[in-house]
Amino acid sequence: MALISPSRRLRRTPFSDGVEAAGVKAYTVYNRMLLATVFESVEADYRHLKEHVQVWDVSVERQVELRGPDAARLMQMLTPRDLRGMLPGRCFYIPIVDETGGMLNDPVAVKLAEDRWWISIADSDLLLWVKGISNGYRLDVLIDEPDVSPLAIQGPKADELAARIFGDSIRDIKFFRFGLFEFDGREMVVARSGYSKQGGFEVYVEGADIAMPLWDALFKAGEDLNVRAGCPNGIERIEGGLLSYGNDMTDDNTPHECGLGRFCDTQTAIGCIGRDALLRVAKEGPVQQIRAIAVEGDQLPLCDRAWGLYAGDTRVGQLTSAAWSPDHQTNVAIGMVRMTHWDTGTKLRVETPDGAREATVQAGFWH
Amino acid sequence: MALISPSRRLRRTPFSDGVEAAGVKAYTVYNRMLLATVFESVEADYRHLKEHVQVWDVSVERQVELRGPDAARLMQMLTPRDLRGMLPGRCFYIPIVDETGGMLNDPVAVKLAEDRWWISIADSDLLLWVKGISNGYRLDVLIDEPDVSPLAIQGPKADELAARIFGDSIRDIKFFRFGLFEFDGREMVVARSGYSKQGGFEVYVEGADIAMPLWDALFKAGEDLNVRAGCPNGIERIEGGLLSYGNDMTDDNTPHECGLGRFCDTQTAIGCIGRDALLRVAKEGPVQQIRAIAVEGDQLPLCDRAWGLYAGDTRVGQLTSAAWSPDHQTNVAIGMVRMTHWDTGTKLRVETPDGAREATVQAGFWH
Repeated sequence: MALISPSRRLRRTPFSDGVEAAGVKAYTVYNRMLLATVFESVEADYRHLKEHVQVWDVSVERQVELRGPDAARLMQMLTPRDLRGMLPGRCFYIPIVDETGGMLNDPVAVKLAEDRWWISIADSDLLLWVKGISNGYRLDVLIDEPDVSPLAIQGPKADELAARIFGDSIRDIKFFRFGLFEFDGREMVVARSGYSKQGGFEVYVEGADIAMPLWDALFKAGEDLNVRAGCPNGIERIEGGLLSYGNDMTDDNTPHECGLGRFCDTQTAIGCIGRDALLRVAKEGPVQQIRAIAVEGDQLPLCDRAWGLYAGDTRVGQLTSAAWSPDHQTNVAIGMVRMTHWDTGTKLRVETPDGAREATVQAGFWH
Repeated sequence: MALISPSRRLRRTPFSDGVEAAGVKAYTVYNRMLLATVFESVEADYRHLKEHVQVWDVSVERQVELRGPDAARLMQMLTPRDLRGMLPGRCFYIPIVDETGGMLNDPVAVKLAEDRWWISIADSDLLLWVKGISNGYRLDVLIDEPDVSPLAIQGPKADELAARIFGDSIRDIKFFRFGLFEFDGREMVVARSGYSKQGGFEVYVEGADIAMPLWDALFKAGEDLNVRAGCPNGIERIEGGLLSYGNDMTDDNTPHECGLGRFCDTQTAIGCIGRDALLRVAKEGPVQQIRAIAVEGDQLPLCDRAWGLYAGDTRVGQLTSAAWSPDHQTNVAIGMVRMTHWDTGTKLRVETPDGAREATVQAGFWH
């Protein structure tokens, strides 16, 4: 593995001093910002995440803020999910599509008020798409990237740790809801959400100055809970079927191909830019779709490009994320498979840089 | 320095096999794609670039292709540079601005035909801005990222090496012009351009399948020229005053602040989205501007965040790129300085993570 060259362009976060002090060993770059990938080792981080509680610097989930009288109209233009019934205080996972129905991002939308929204984005400059659309349609809405950096608290002891900082009422937040909680005299949006299946919260930290005080307070309060610095874990997120934009899907894919059809109300999402393109696929279904795939044999190499999936000589799909799961004692993987070969139990061949392996389509992810 | 974690999201290039075989030691991520930063060492790569010839995988200069009857109109909407006089066969460096006059990118526009353009982009998802604008204004233009990966040939022996592959007529290409040249039966756009001051070409390689054959042919043809794999060099580009979007400027800055006023014809760039916002600054000039800055003392640490520039207790600017120059025996740097302190010879103080240093505003870059 090669080193990463620091530069201002690969932005540090308000928590970077804490991440470095915790002994980060490797990074990825996400939204032109540093995101830790390894502390002790991917396997040790995984085990700890499943048993204790971790604090994650996920500042890379940058916010696109929409404010103004046309904010709600613009939000609906971006997504085939029907947002009419969404109340302030709710978080919605929303596919965002272009005029062809291709995925541009798969963020979480946070509705702060009727005329104020945050879009907590995956890895693409969604700000530019939203600004371009708003400009072209001459909408009355202010769009920018505010000084907000999410910090995640994840793991089975996340409720206990969060309660020690924000009070016991935080235990009552329901999944994908948020509330306002105070830390050090500042109100913070805290949502029950996060990029793991271990449960926990995401704190939307507004203002870089309060970032390290919150980080330090969490580590002090969680000493007896064995709290550690962590990061989205490559094994755990594949076991749980958490998709990664840019890895498992790109703008080539519709939401339906990504298995996100349940987040699309294409018929009623009036105004959605990709609606026309998606109406047919919403009715007839996609011809390829994301599947959980188990791959035989010992630990696979790191998956840094699409690996072809074959039935005989015919390419029928590709794997885009893979890892050895200590808990399930198999290689867990995420792939896009054509409908002719996507049934549970279908045996395929995956071509990896280390040679061919047998692969089997699963009924679902592992959790 | 930490490691970089491979994943499909950090895209490999059609030349990655060659880059790895050449012993790349470090990467950055640029347009969500891998860009080498070090082969032997930054200093050794620098010396070699100035004396011989290097082949650079600059696939990260992704192309945004515009095709269709409204392509030229859309191009002019993006930039305050007047494109009316631009003929097919020309390359123009164009600032791209939003409705506030803030820089969204500083690409090179390549005019292939009246209705077909490539924008060879710096590090931001310009595709999304262009698509959003086109959609909002309902323009008849097709916009996508084609399978084009630039390969640069840079250094004093670049003409000789390029001539051995493409023929002697390549020596006649003028600066920022391009021609069509054949390699292995395929026509390629070859421009006299590149992100160094050492001279050379950029080959717009269309089709991933021809990438490694061209790479290998260049290394075979250039053996006696001491050709090596290289990459944009952190020392040489600062000496030469080549700005880096995301490092030295962001969407907070106007082109005039970046010293790019000579590429703006704000008065006559009718249709440019940022024209209204830029008319005043074009007339009155900016209140801060990019300057070459020399920093006293021995080699500075890597500049991975903006370092404040001070006059006494007053912050008057910031440094965003810095490197020790073996040839000039000083730290060369790029900074943004307020007009009260931007005159040549002004002494300032820069606050680095290793402490304060004396800094002096230069009349120009070093070359």
